[in-house]
Amino acid sequence: MSAPLLEQFIEALRVLPGVGQKTAQRMAYHLLDRDRRGGARLAEVMADALMKIGQCKQCRDFSEGEICGLCASASRDRQQLCVVESPVDRLAIEQATGYRGLYFVLHGKLSPLDGIGPRELGLDQLGERLAQGGVEEMIIATNPTVEGEATAHYVAQLARQHGVRPSRLAHGVPLGGELEYVDRGTLSHAFGSRSEIP
Amino acid sequence: MSAPLLEQFIEALRVLPGVGQKTAQRMAYHLLDRDRRGGARLAEVMADALMKIGQCKQCRDFSEGEICGLCASASRDRQQLCVVESPVDRLAIEQATGYRGLYFVLHGKLSPLDGIGPRELGLDQLGERLAQGGVEEMIIATNPTVEGEATAHYVAQLARQHGVRPSRLAHGVPLGGELEYVDRGTLSHAFGSRSEIP
Repeated sequence: MSAPLLEQFIEALRVLPGVGQKTAQRMAYHLLDRDRRGGARLAEVMADALMKIGQCKQCRDFSEGEICGLCASASRDRQQLCVVESPVDRLAIEQATGYRGLYFVLHGKLSPLDGIGPRELGLDQLGERLAQGGVEEMIIATNPTVEGEATAHYVAQLARQHGVRPSRLAHGVPLGGELEYVDRGTLSHAFGSRSEIP
Repeated sequence: MSAPLLEQFIEALRVLPGVGQKTAQRMAYHLLDRDRRGGARLAEVMADALMKIGQCKQCRDFSEGEICGLCASASRDRQQLCVVESPVDRLAIEQATGYRGLYFVLHGKLSPLDGIGPRELGLDQLGERLAQGGVEEMIIATNPTVEGEATAHYVAQLARQHGVRPSRLAHGVPLGGELEYVDRGTLSHAFGSRSEIP
């Protein structure tokens, strides 16, 4: 009985992650009832962003221009390169740590069954960049999953081929966590990698 | 360090209800990384819907045309009129009950402090409709809140002025609920309104 356009609107909202039928309905009705202006602006900015935002030629992070602001910045340390799976990971590291080097975004992880190989992750591009020299340490910050570890292994080899020192994030018990609730694999790893108290 | 357009995009997503900074970020990155096409379609449909969907002249529900499909339908009972606060409530009643009458959507509730009086709720329009005759029962389905009750009281008076019989939804213990967890007001009301077992 509803207007078809309203149904299309609700259906279209479901492309957003974590948004099902009920939430989409609530969102559509909220915008129509209370914030048409904000909604119109969102539609405009969204269309604009999806059309104009591409990838930085150097780090493959999202960027409007050819080179992103971070890669172009003169204040970053060009001897360190941190490899992450996705732009969200880059953001998390940027917000949480004092890292001042550059990044390289893979936009995924090696997954041969899904047809995602080194090419799809831009690893040829990463190889070229390392070949140009200047990078001394490559911090590999892929996720600690099976596929992430495989990717890290591959990327580390690539680094060694170009004489770059690979490193990875420490694994162990999270700060503020309780040993009782830490999963076995993490606890076993943390126990094995214990360090001496100076 | 991010591209300003990306920041604008994330900021704009926050007009959606229940979407904060983190969720907006996740949504923007998801669309950019995995579903540019779906996002572009959403932007298009959203702009279209917000521009074209207005209110039905008869029931004030959202509608593309002057009169919505439900009001125009020949198979609905024109002697019953159900008054609801918002289009979502209409949808809920339509989906849950076998009601075959028509609706009237207030788009709010009486709230003098916020400047929402009878005019803003279209009550003059509702009065005109009742004056035309034909309606026999008015089912008042405003929310059982203080403001909703005040609105119900006002609307019921309006109905009586036009010789229309007002009714309201039953209040009581929800089906499947446990007495232990029902709030005092509801329990007291349910106790007072008990009915004889035939």
